[in-house]
Amino acid sequence: MDEFDLIGRYFTRPVSHTALGVGDDAALIDPTPGCQTVVACDMLVEGVHFFADADPRGLGHKALAVNLSDLAAMGATPRQALLGIALPEADAAWLAAFADGFGALAAHYGVDWVGGDTTRGPRNLCVTVLGEVPRGRALLRSGAGAGDELWLSGTPGLAALGLAHLKGECRLAGAACAAALARLHTPAPRVALGIALRGIASACIDVSDGVLADLAHLLRASAAAAGPTAGDPLSAELDGPALMAPLRAHLREAAAPPPEALLRQAVLSGGDDYELLFTAPPAHRETVAALAAATGAPLACVGRVLPSMAGATPHITVVDGATSARVTATGYLHFG
Amino acid sequence: MDEFDLIGRYFTRPVSHTALGVGDDAALIDPTPGCQTVVACDMLVEGVHFFADADPRGLGHKALAVNLSDLAAMGATPRQALLGIALPEADAAWLAAFADGFGALAAHYGVDWVGGDTTRGPRNLCVTVLGEVPRGRALLRSGAGAGDELWLSGTPGLAALGLAHLKGECRLAGAACAAALARLHTPAPRVALGIALRGIASACIDVSDGVLADLAHLLRASAAAAGPTAGDPLSAELDGPALMAPLRAHLREAAAPPPEALLRQAVLSGGDDYELLFTAPPAHRETVAALAAATGAPLACVGRVLPSMAGATPHITVVDGATSARVTATGYLHFG
Repeated sequence: MDEFDLIGRYFTRPVSHTALGVGDDAALIDPTPGCQTVVACDMLVEGVHFFADADPRGLGHKALAVNLSDLAAMGATPRQALLGIALPEADAAWLAAFADGFGALAAHYGVDWVGGDTTRGPRNLCVTVLGEVPRGRALLRSGAGAGDELWLSGTPGLAALGLAHLKGECRLAGAACAAALARLHTPAPRVALGIALRGIASACIDVSDGVLADLAHLLRASAAAAGPTAGDPLSAELDGPALMAPLRAHLREAAAPPPEALLRQAVLSGGDDYELLFTAPPAHRETVAALAAATGAPLACVGRVLPSMAGATPHITVVDGATSARVTATGYLHFG
Repeated sequence: MDEFDLIGRYFTRPVSHTALGVGDDAALIDPTPGCQTVVACDMLVEGVHFFADADPRGLGHKALAVNLSDLAAMGATPRQALLGIALPEADAAWLAAFADGFGALAAHYGVDWVGGDTTRGPRNLCVTVLGEVPRGRALLRSGAGAGDELWLSGTPGLAALGLAHLKGECRLAGAACAAALARLHTPAPRVALGIALRGIASACIDVSDGVLADLAHLLRASAAAAGPTAGDPLSAELDGPALMAPLRAHLREAAAPPPEALLRQAVLSGGDDYELLFTAPPAHRETVAALAAATGAPLACVGRVLPSMAGATPHITVVDGATSARVTATGYLHFG
């Protein structure tokens, strides 16, 4: 099985809305009139983003899901995907399962798999996704203003808890364990929510590096967009109990819930949740709350954006009832 | 230096025709009305596509060039690029040189560098490029018909000769050596030629796997496009002297030219040239010949397309004066 057989057998699917898919030097796409093209690229590396023995079906799902999450954060409708893949060997069972996981998620979201590259090398999955959004309606990181409320979808910290379980840092069981591992291995990109937030959210980002780190990105980008004179990033106040509530609810039935410090760490700094963190003016509160039912994404108001304070690092404070603590935004860093 | 510093310092350039570049969850592009979007992705892996000690500036150039070559083969105008990159460490000098090579080629072709991903891992460069072509005017692999003439740009075999020199399989010197290594390390994508061939070439492919292998792809795709009943791939006859002439001319001054068998192997099966191989009806001969001067790409008519013959493998014959030999299309295979 050479790479042409391999591409033909595993990586070629019929396309539904693309002029020309896999098989030529490039794919051809007819853009929808009145739309902007939205494009993102995420690379997953064995030993860094996934274990060598990771389930290939889950890996196929995740490689596409993390990219669709970037499109969701822009409010885009996903349209096409390309897969650059390096593999140490052409293992038919591995490839079939990987392609199944990738292909099933692509089919679920109506994404045409239109090309890529297959090569020998240390296992590496580099996915590029294209989506569309009506011109001028994309959600950006940079639109938040002081006074906006902060919203978060899903159960932040769940994926990090699953990873902590795998690393032996805590012990989960039953349904709570299964859900945490599912979130870690097969995250569900918030595509419908992102699309529904067009015209409602003032800023949006997907949580891949952790709530604090990604909130800091959003606050920096929003201050920078206010012009070079704005200088300092915006600040934010997070509602500790509101932030922790979904994960606590998730663990309600657990015989031996993980220690409080681990839960807090998972919620504030755990990555890999691929939930949407967004801002909206308080006037939109009812509208946003209604989107939870409409899109199937649980939503919680978890804080608010505050004016700039002096300093290059965004001031982020977590308020827990009577006490409040300033926290530092750290997320996973590959370098440094 | 964490990856955000690194992206800010090396991988962020001003964009000239893209609505939103690096810095958000995805880039935003305004498609040109009346155009199709053309998208391709190529991955280069250390130890497979380049040596660990490869010059980083050349590598930055090549990673983008091989992708622009795919767009050229479609007749597309290049517009944007994304770079997914895995690196074992954040080496400032390496990164600066790599980004310079990539950025200089991007600037040369007016390509906006709009995003990507930076991660730790075994060195891997996965580039995605987007281009545009007026609707319905893309060059495909699949339009060749029996009777069309086969054309090839540049000096086929030159990159393979450079590689043979590096591997000690032959000994080049002086200008001939420098040109062969330049072709291998910093190939020039035939962007202007691809654009000029719109409406003239009946089929086109870029030569990355070797002339025989890529010609076989073109013949298979063209037969398949003629409908499922067509069955067998088209055949082709190559003019040996015409095919070898550019490389021979290149070596005219060489004190000790490489052995004939090596030259023939380089021309027929050497990859990495990134020249365009295309077909056109004989009626277009003068028009095609004139494009060489207009686009700066030397062009030679190297054979013709013949009707199908029974068998799954395209029949490709090389005619050398009175003798002719049927050759098998083989190129570099990563697997199998």
